[in-house]
Amino acid sequence: MTTASVDVDSARRAYEELVGRGLSLDITRGKPSPRQLDLSADLLTLPNGEYRAADGTDTRNYGGLKGLPELRRIFAGPLQVPAEQLLAAGNSSLELMHDTVAQALLSTLPGGQRRWADEPRVAMLAPVPGYDRHFNLAERFGIELIPVPMTETGPDLDEVERLAAGDAAVKGIWCVPKYSNPTGVTFSDETAARLAAMPTAAPDFRIFWDNAYAVHHLTEVETEVADILTLCAQAGNADRAFVFGSTSKITLAGAGVGFFGASEANIAWWLGLIALRTIGPDKVNHLRHARFLKDTDGLRGHMRKHAEIIAPKFDAVDRILTEELGESGLVSWTKPAGGYFISLTVPDGTAKEIVRLAKEAGIALTPAGATHPHGDDPADAIIRIAPTFPEQAEVEEAVRGLAVCVRLAAAQRG
Amino acid sequence: MTTASVDVDSARRAYEELVGRGLSLDITRGKPSPRQLDLSADLLTLPNGEYRAADGTDTRNYGGLKGLPELRRIFAGPLQVPAEQLLAAGNSSLELMHDTVAQALLSTLPGGQRRWADEPRVAMLAPVPGYDRHFNLAERFGIELIPVPMTETGPDLDEVERLAAGDAAVKGIWCVPKYSNPTGVTFSDETAARLAAMPTAAPDFRIFWDNAYAVHHLTEVETEVADILTLCAQAGNADRAFVFGSTSKITLAGAGVGFFGASEANIAWWLGLIALRTIGPDKVNHLRHARFLKDTDGLRGHMRKHAEIIAPKFDAVDRILTEELGESGLVSWTKPAGGYFISLTVPDGTAKEIVRLAKEAGIALTPAGATHPHGDDPADAIIRIAPTFPEQAEVEEAVRGLAVCVRLAAAQRG
Repeated sequence: MTTASVDVDSARRAYEELVGRGLSLDITRGKPSPRQLDLSADLLTLPNGEYRAADGTDTRNYGGLKGLPELRRIFAGPLQVPAEQLLAAGNSSLELMHDTVAQALLSTLPGGQRRWADEPRVAMLAPVPGYDRHFNLAERFGIELIPVPMTETGPDLDEVERLAAGDAAVKGIWCVPKYSNPTGVTFSDETAARLAAMPTAAPDFRIFWDNAYAVHHLTEVETEVADILTLCAQAGNADRAFVFGSTSKITLAGAGVGFFGASEANIAWWLGLIALRTIGPDKVNHLRHARFLKDTDGLRGHMRKHAEIIAPKFDAVDRILTEELGESGLVSWTKPAGGYFISLTVPDGTAKEIVRLAKEAGIALTPAGATHPHGDDPADAIIRIAPTFPEQAEVEEAVRGLAVCVRLAAAQRG
Repeated sequence: MTTASVDVDSARRAYEELVGRGLSLDITRGKPSPRQLDLSADLLTLPNGEYRAADGTDTRNYGGLKGLPELRRIFAGPLQVPAEQLLAAGNSSLELMHDTVAQALLSTLPGGQRRWADEPRVAMLAPVPGYDRHFNLAERFGIELIPVPMTETGPDLDEVERLAAGDAAVKGIWCVPKYSNPTGVTFSDETAARLAAMPTAAPDFRIFWDNAYAVHHLTEVETEVADILTLCAQAGNADRAFVFGSTSKITLAGAGVGFFGASEANIAWWLGLIALRTIGPDKVNHLRHARFLKDTDGLRGHMRKHAEIIAPKFDAVDRILTEELGESGLVSWTKPAGGYFISLTVPDGTAKEIVRLAKEAGIALTPAGATHPHGDDPADAIIRIAPTFPEQAEVEEAVRGLAVCVRLAAAQRG
């Protein structure tokens, strides 16, 4: 990597020109754009007076702890969980992940010896770069996060196996197995198989398999990951995986449906606990979703419409980074086949400065370090780009501006 | 109380005739009837394509941790919580109560010295008869429940004050202050004021003020309870009360909106924690509710329609109990001016037997003892009647059958 081509004065002039333009752009978070939300406009009139489920249930009233069967059937295939073991819940999977950790703290898990709250120390493995909300909720409960580097095929498994086998305080690992946040990596079959089979010192070790982008393809290739529940069962660790998913980036980000899937024993544990918390989830919203998506093919067709809107934005980021920085030798970036993020690797020690410069120029980026536990990226080198929410022209302008900031930060660093 | 008028043989013949009729009736739970749910039919087409909130927010997307402002404003008055301190959340208040306890176990409350999970012992006061779901969720967390008798004006305050002042493990009290479940009692102003002002050994003592029936009047008299948040603030205990409510028995039981209100410090505590759990509640459902109810007057008018449907069912229970058992001296019952329940007091030691006899005759009743912690009513004398869900004729038939069972159980007991 060389910075020879970067001249400080010209970089500063370019940056001053950028600031002078008074931009107000935001590529911080993985939010669907209004045009994407428009794809689900029918949800704003459904269920259109029809409140009976396929089995005759009045969805308006109490009950139905597992969620609406017809909706669970639609997502059973995409999430690779038998419908009987897949629960449909409230409007996000984040709350299901949070509550699973909270319940594990307060009630002994199947296979466990005591509540996590009664352990002297609880730790989880955090593949980095990774998803800030996973890390934040664990930190909030005082759970120690142990970073593990991501590779092209998933987390570094030698490291994961060593830590899981050697330390009984290590109770789980956070995974986004497909189109990972933020790298776009999809776990290889070998990664999944080794996670399922590896010895763990904790008898109640759990894989938090956040399949957030299960059907979120950007190309015509529909990448699939290995079926983690089946792999765990085959390896004699049937209760090891918790599977999460949601429609947040399928239908309406704020009014979707979250899913939780696991072994029969885990589901029985979960249902026994949540029966004390709720008389049932919003089945009318489940019915809206089932009527709207119709079936798994309907879901697939719907996701292709999303790709038509957002793939050009991802392409633009790639094209502009190539144009602006491709020859510079300063940076590298991912070209994901799905998901919501591009991960940009900048010269060590410049990510925070680039984010600061961009902010001054009116371009909001996710804080540098957000992809690491405690917001601390030791190399200060990873920037997450989320291109879905802004309009196409805004994405392009933001990335051109980002390139200006990268050049200045690199030049200043010399 | 005399059983002289009850003849065992005639009671048994009446019961055999009842069994012979092969009934299948259910007066177990406080569920709205389909006719009541029909009152909110518009929610099944709303927001009818319009997704902008009053302030222009796109309700379809992420965000808005506190819930939709216009909906919170509608419920601020009825729940006696300033809109800024009232949060609109998911589809039930039960989950808010559960999560408040869970959060208190895992994060130190304002005014507290440590997490409840780190206390050697945690106890809550349980007015009896009371609401089984309150008791069950506390028991699930290993929280000890200390029964306190209900009076005509609320829980026995001498007892409450003695326990709260004398035992630092006593962290809270469960209250249904208006049209209490199951007695229909509304707390007097003095009860509320003493709860707000009493000395407590625990610095983080909380009143769980479950105002489930805030607007659920059965008569034209709209009973009001004292404003607990203001009373607590005036007494120098601003953080003492957690207020809960929901639209479950206002709009759709399974697809409503729950509310949580408290002091500014408590709300800041709560928001800081749930920001790690969710990116925001289902604002589209909030918008549906705001558009449907319009304002507090709209809410009041809507509740009158409920009363028109269910008041005749409550009247029928009272009329038939009077006709069948009024002269017997065996029983007494409540005549609530609101809420969802009638509490029937039967001769000591017969409640379980009456519920069993009714079940054999095809009449489902809430298990005897459900109104007490651990399902144990020491006097075995309280039966909760929930008349809202069945059709009018079914309510009448069920209560006539119940009277037959009461007479037989009393006669057998002699």
